[in-house]
Amino acid sequence: MALIVQKYGGSSVANCDLIKGIADHVIACKRQGDDIVVVLSAMSGETDRFIDMARQVQPRPDSRELDVLMAAGEQITTSLFAMAVREKGFKATSFLGYQIPIDTDSAHGKARILDISTKKLNAAIKSGHIPVVAGFQGVTPRGNITTLGRGGSDTTAVAVAVVLNADICEIYTDVDGVYTTDPHICPNARKIDRISYEEMMEMASLGAKVLDIRSVEFAMRYGMPVHVRSSFIYNTGTHVVKEDEIMEQVLVSGVTYSRNEARITITKVPDNPGIAASIFNPISDANIVVDMIIQNTRASDLTDMTFTIPRRDYDQAMEIVKKVAKQIGAETAAGDCGIAKVSIVGVGMRNHAGVASKMFDILARHGINILMISTSEIKISCVIEEKYTELAVRALHEEFGLDNG
Amino acid sequence: MALIVQKYGGSSVANCDLIKGIADHVIACKRQGDDIVVVLSAMSGETDRFIDMARQVQPRPDSRELDVLMAAGEQITTSLFAMAVREKGFKATSFLGYQIPIDTDSAHGKARILDISTKKLNAAIKSGHIPVVAGFQGVTPRGNITTLGRGGSDTTAVAVAVVLNADICEIYTDVDGVYTTDPHICPNARKIDRISYEEMMEMASLGAKVLDIRSVEFAMRYGMPVHVRSSFIYNTGTHVVKEDEIMEQVLVSGVTYSRNEARITITKVPDNPGIAASIFNPISDANIVVDMIIQNTRASDLTDMTFTIPRRDYDQAMEIVKKVAKQIGAETAAGDCGIAKVSIVGVGMRNHAGVASKMFDILARHGINILMISTSEIKISCVIEEKYTELAVRALHEEFGLDNG
Repeated sequence: MALIVQKYGGSSVANCDLIKGIADHVIACKRQGDDIVVVLSAMSGETDRFIDMARQVQPRPDSRELDVLMAAGEQITTSLFAMAVREKGFKATSFLGYQIPIDTDSAHGKARILDISTKKLNAAIKSGHIPVVAGFQGVTPRGNITTLGRGGSDTTAVAVAVVLNADICEIYTDVDGVYTTDPHICPNARKIDRISYEEMMEMASLGAKVLDIRSVEFAMRYGMPVHVRSSFIYNTGTHVVKEDEIMEQVLVSGVTYSRNEARITITKVPDNPGIAASIFNPISDANIVVDMIIQNTRASDLTDMTFTIPRRDYDQAMEIVKKVAKQIGAETAAGDCGIAKVSIVGVGMRNHAGVASKMFDILARHGINILMISTSEIKISCVIEEKYTELAVRALHEEFGLDNG
Repeated sequence: MALIVQKYGGSSVANCDLIKGIADHVIACKRQGDDIVVVLSAMSGETDRFIDMARQVQPRPDSRELDVLMAAGEQITTSLFAMAVREKGFKATSFLGYQIPIDTDSAHGKARILDISTKKLNAAIKSGHIPVVAGFQGVTPRGNITTLGRGGSDTTAVAVAVVLNADICEIYTDVDGVYTTDPHICPNARKIDRISYEEMMEMASLGAKVLDIRSVEFAMRYGMPVHVRSSFIYNTGTHVVKEDEIMEQVLVSGVTYSRNEARITITKVPDNPGIAASIFNPISDANIVVDMIIQNTRASDLTDMTFTIPRRDYDQAMEIVKKVAKQIGAETAAGDCGIAKVSIVGVGMRNHAGVASKMFDILARHGINILMISTSEIKISCVIEEKYTELAVRALHEEFGLDNG
């Protein structure tokens, strides 16, 4: 008898019929003798509706109040789900963030989980109930409602699995697993059967949206096995596991891309100590996350500084950077939203030289100019012109031997 | 500087534009130097949507889970309202039932308020915030969400006003006050300027839907002045006050009616001690509220028993009564849904004889047969055939001198 935490995303609980179908699936699992804990997101349409209403009354909604509003979303799905299970004659109880409680810090909209009490959940399981946990939400020490940010329900699920010492955390979504790349771009993409936490983290951070990166980090830290699978066809999906549990090692496990990028360059920056801080402090103060940073030293004591940021923050960042450029005596600041980032990910890289140069070679042979490069132990990312995105992804996917068949 | 609790019903906060308009009104009151506490219902359409979704997954929804679902309604309006106030540069904070907390018993769907903590609300007021309180909801000692039942937000508002020692509790709704009778039936109905708690309670219990009866009971017990007024035109509405604060005493203050009635008669009941209990216990066990009861003793030791119940419970009640009739050896049980109850209400009745006979006379002169009669100190109700409802209301309204002009 296993203890399984099952998380269902917004598209899996988007209406009452879907909720009833998933209740049937959960009950079928329960009938097999396992204990099930369900973690739910809000109905997919509901979240957008709430955000739209919030913006109608306050274009930049207050973060505390927005969390109160958003948290209503899982309140709706968890209560409906508990009803659907009860209708079939099984016991179920909904648990909101503050009821468990799921303690978080007070960073509204992107709170971090500090602790999850197991008392009520374990009592519910012991008495034969299926606990239905509201994902995405928590509560501060002062009793304010928080939300964990996009993909937060994944984090809730893994964290609940960890504290309950579950055997596995199943993430049900609208795709049937993690793919070697985006099948919409590359029809030859293959479903990955097993992937390491490290690779999954890189894939998630690079734009593969199947699993939230914080949830993978959490799972890795506590060694919680995660199974990403579809709530529409109940086939085996992708198992996210420790590296040593993967039999067949490949050089590259996946190719990802992100169009959510913008680039800003400041030219002729005086190369003084602390100059980087004077550029990037005001940007981070505005809560803008800088991804890659490249500094080219010129012949003189001037330097060029290029960095990437999320495209949605471009206008705000340019405004800040132009002000800063003037202050520090740089020549000019220019930017570009027409870029994309393509990356290859694989733990196999660790033990193989020449992967990077092979990637550069592939891109070059297809006439794709590399604008920026960034590498980690198991990942190589290149910024390219956006129009080459699909071409780059397909070329890399094929030439690193990931194509189907 | 006064402390005013303002409650806005579902039709007053039915969409974002209405919410913004009411935020403006609240801010205008605040600008006048008063402290304002706002109590909100859910958007009127939202409640129905939730109930519809609940029934889709569980035709008879679990009461605990239904309360979790319904409570999301005020969560949505309170957070949006706080945002709307903040957008105008004023401070506001939403408070859900469990955050205050509003402690209730655990009767899901019809919980009673046990206690309301003033600590957080007073702290918010003191720091210049407008507290925005979720009406209708509370929390049990075990942390489960409860709702107070239909009209519960009125009760929340009055209870909050009482614990905060407010100067007045304003109930904003979609009508501009309490009327001498339903203006849809009687175009000559007049708005009542001042009405006593006792009269308002009778009016509410007899079907005048402006104010929830429990909230009036609460206000009367603690002497909290209530002002019922419109959120669409901010004129003076109806003040609900102590009897001795009403200058001009009239014989009859209002005429009410209810079509929500059904009648059941059991004939030839053996007239033994305890026979009434054996009939009414199984009915109350089924949570059916009996209103009037009349017992006619026949010549022999047999009696006829007639009583009224809410029309929606008719089928269930008939089923129970037929079973009971057989058990106790009564002749037969018959029922009728085509009835209505018309009532006159007025504290003036206490000191005037002949009000009842005047009512019977008026009805008789219009050819309306009285099927049942029930009286209290300040109210006389007659059950009549439903088809005479409008005629009876108009006749009573005119002949008791309530007509406009």
